[in-house]
Amino acid sequence: MKKYYDYLPKEEIKRRLNKLRQRMKKKGWEAVLVVQNVDLLYFSGTMQKALLFVPVEGEEILMVKRDIERAKGESALKEVIPLNSWREVPTVLNDLYGSIPKRIGIELDVLPAREYLRLQGIFSGVEIVDSSPLIMDVRKIKSPYEIDLMKRAGEIGQLVYAEVPKVLKEGMREIELAGILEEVAMRHGHQSYLRMRAFNFEAFSWHVLSGCAGGMLSYIDAPMGGIGLSPAFPVGASLKPIRAHEPILIDFGVCYCGYQVDETRIFCLGKLPKRFKDALLATRRIEAEVVSLAAAGISCQKLFQKGWELARKLGYEKYFMGPPNHKTRFIGHGIGLEIDEYPFIAQGHDYPLEVGMTFALEPKMVFPAEGAVGVENTFMVGEKGVEKLTLAPEELIEI
Amino acid sequence: MKKYYDYLPKEEIKRRLNKLRQRMKKKGWEAVLVVQNVDLLYFSGTMQKALLFVPVEGEEILMVKRDIERAKGESALKEVIPLNSWREVPTVLNDLYGSIPKRIGIELDVLPAREYLRLQGIFSGVEIVDSSPLIMDVRKIKSPYEIDLMKRAGEIGQLVYAEVPKVLKEGMREIELAGILEEVAMRHGHQSYLRMRAFNFEAFSWHVLSGCAGGMLSYIDAPMGGIGLSPAFPVGASLKPIRAHEPILIDFGVCYCGYQVDETRIFCLGKLPKRFKDALLATRRIEAEVVSLAAAGISCQKLFQKGWELARKLGYEKYFMGPPNHKTRFIGHGIGLEIDEYPFIAQGHDYPLEVGMTFALEPKMVFPAEGAVGVENTFMVGEKGVEKLTLAPEELIEI
Repeated sequence: MKKYYDYLPKEEIKRRLNKLRQRMKKKGWEAVLVVQNVDLLYFSGTMQKALLFVPVEGEEILMVKRDIERAKGESALKEVIPLNSWREVPTVLNDLYGSIPKRIGIELDVLPAREYLRLQGIFSGVEIVDSSPLIMDVRKIKSPYEIDLMKRAGEIGQLVYAEVPKVLKEGMREIELAGILEEVAMRHGHQSYLRMRAFNFEAFSWHVLSGCAGGMLSYIDAPMGGIGLSPAFPVGASLKPIRAHEPILIDFGVCYCGYQVDETRIFCLGKLPKRFKDALLATRRIEAEVVSLAAAGISCQKLFQKGWELARKLGYEKYFMGPPNHKTRFIGHGIGLEIDEYPFIAQGHDYPLEVGMTFALEPKMVFPAEGAVGVENTFMVGEKGVEKLTLAPEELIEI
Repeated sequence: MKKYYDYLPKEEIKRRLNKLRQRMKKKGWEAVLVVQNVDLLYFSGTMQKALLFVPVEGEEILMVKRDIERAKGESALKEVIPLNSWREVPTVLNDLYGSIPKRIGIELDVLPAREYLRLQGIFSGVEIVDSSPLIMDVRKIKSPYEIDLMKRAGEIGQLVYAEVPKVLKEGMREIELAGILEEVAMRHGHQSYLRMRAFNFEAFSWHVLSGCAGGMLSYIDAPMGGIGLSPAFPVGASLKPIRAHEPILIDFGVCYCGYQVDETRIFCLGKLPKRFKDALLATRRIEAEVVSLAAAGISCQKLFQKGWELARKLGYEKYFMGPPNHKTRFIGHGIGLEIDEYPFIAQGHDYPLEVGMTFALEPKMVFPAEGAVGVENTFMVGEKGVEKLTLAPEELIEI
């Protein structure tokens, strides 16, 4: 059958597994068992239903429940074997490695408790530790291969934002515009299904918030949530009709081959009132300030503080990153296969930016019951400062 | 601010909590702590970031981390209070109820292990048991209120399928058609974000599988998976161009106010070859046979067996529900707020259909490397047999 996409190169997988093993060695861990679909993709190249066993020494093995043929085709790993049940894993490991590790790392931030308890039963006497901090530490530095996919996601974003002035009409519902943009993005290869790691959080593309919707908070730790379609989805685009002279905030996440970028632009039907215009300019100044400082070696917390300092200086303390008492804890977040990765540009995150990190920076201003404005771009940290991956024009577009 | 949607009626919540309490009493449980977003919505009417404590006797309490004002507006529950951290829960419960239960039910099939371990620390000395079987048992019977939302999802499905003949063109990529259908559905209020409960499974609307794509297996326990956009999303629509004379299987899930329906129809550009046509007719005969038997009181396993009996009699053993050795374990599944609910029309599921259950029945035939055909509809169990909620015409559409 014709191939419609590329598989993850073997060298890419090897480098990733090497990095994981370096961290395992430091911790004194004998093995990691990768269980989550995104982590499986990252370390094996396939997202088929499987478990990946990575011993600190020796060959890793991918045990596949379904579909084994597809997993063999997609993964460049040498050892890809069928597995009927998790119960078989200890026997498989014993046969292959001669023993079962005393301690195994598993992603406890995503593995459901029921499965955890089941694995405890299967691996009786084995200490199960949380491997997610190690895995997220490996994943936080992107390779040129990964950056390239994020750039292609950024290109789809440009097409999405270019569509807005062509289709936006007064009275159109937010969800209607969202659907049109989703169609444009999918036509160009957008995966549509975004991914977030945290429990109970759901990532999606179509944050289209007009006027008062931009002032609505919701369960997400974001400056604004939107009205949403119902209490069953209380975020993002809604049935609200878009009106003239209100800020239309479009925060459209694009995903290409699993890799995501975040980008926000502001539109308006007719003239946008001056206070929103000024607030938007303020967010762009804050972005410019943070970007001018952002480079390998600088503390993420420091960038957060610098952004806040300027917001205060410009007189936007009340509006920046949400209403008083509801401010987000960050002004930017790492992004890649998931939209809640390291680094976080946030208070308490006093670690340095490193070359290869990618993050979305999103200075935003919220006026409760009135609207929200702001700018968001995804950046990669290069040898000299940061490079923007989301290239739609940043200027306010009045239609 | 203008309201763009309705909130869950108080009576609905009361009935649901009563049912839960009946089951808790039977088990001898003192309390359930609801933690998952979908279950929170079901029992409180809001999906804000919260915990819902349900004692077997006394008033339930919704403790909200974010956003408290929104939760108060959306939920008809009397006791909605702010919560800063899960650590506070024991103190809150002690203050309100005078003691902490000895045993608390929590949804262990979805709560991540890390959060489970954290709760074990917070509730030291309390036995934590798995409440999901109880909750799913309550949720499996839908009220007229819920059925109405599913009917409205079904109406959106009709508009989606009616669009296909208008837009389908030779050479169009599967994902392009998928995007157009997504746009149509969203314009009519489709939530776009579908939900599935099982770990590592991701629900989405746009299963558009043409020709050989219909013969591709993937990680999901479904007769076919599709090519997908990349190894990072190895299911559903792909970049494959749609050609004449190949079966185009469109399995488009629609979600309205959180409630989902599943529906599959077959299209073809030009004439569909006879073997696919015959196979499609066979699936429709199987559907008719199962539907004629389906009624409150009949065993789900019995329906499964009846479907399989007819498939064999018609000579489709090799193709029915997937290729040999890769057959799905079911021919139908419960559906509602999630697409993997009770009942399962499957071997080993020897319990009766009950009035108010809703399920998708999906007899399908898979020809590896060639294509797939079949029909899927969502039904509700009424007093007299079942009623179909997905009303797009079932006949093959040749364009």
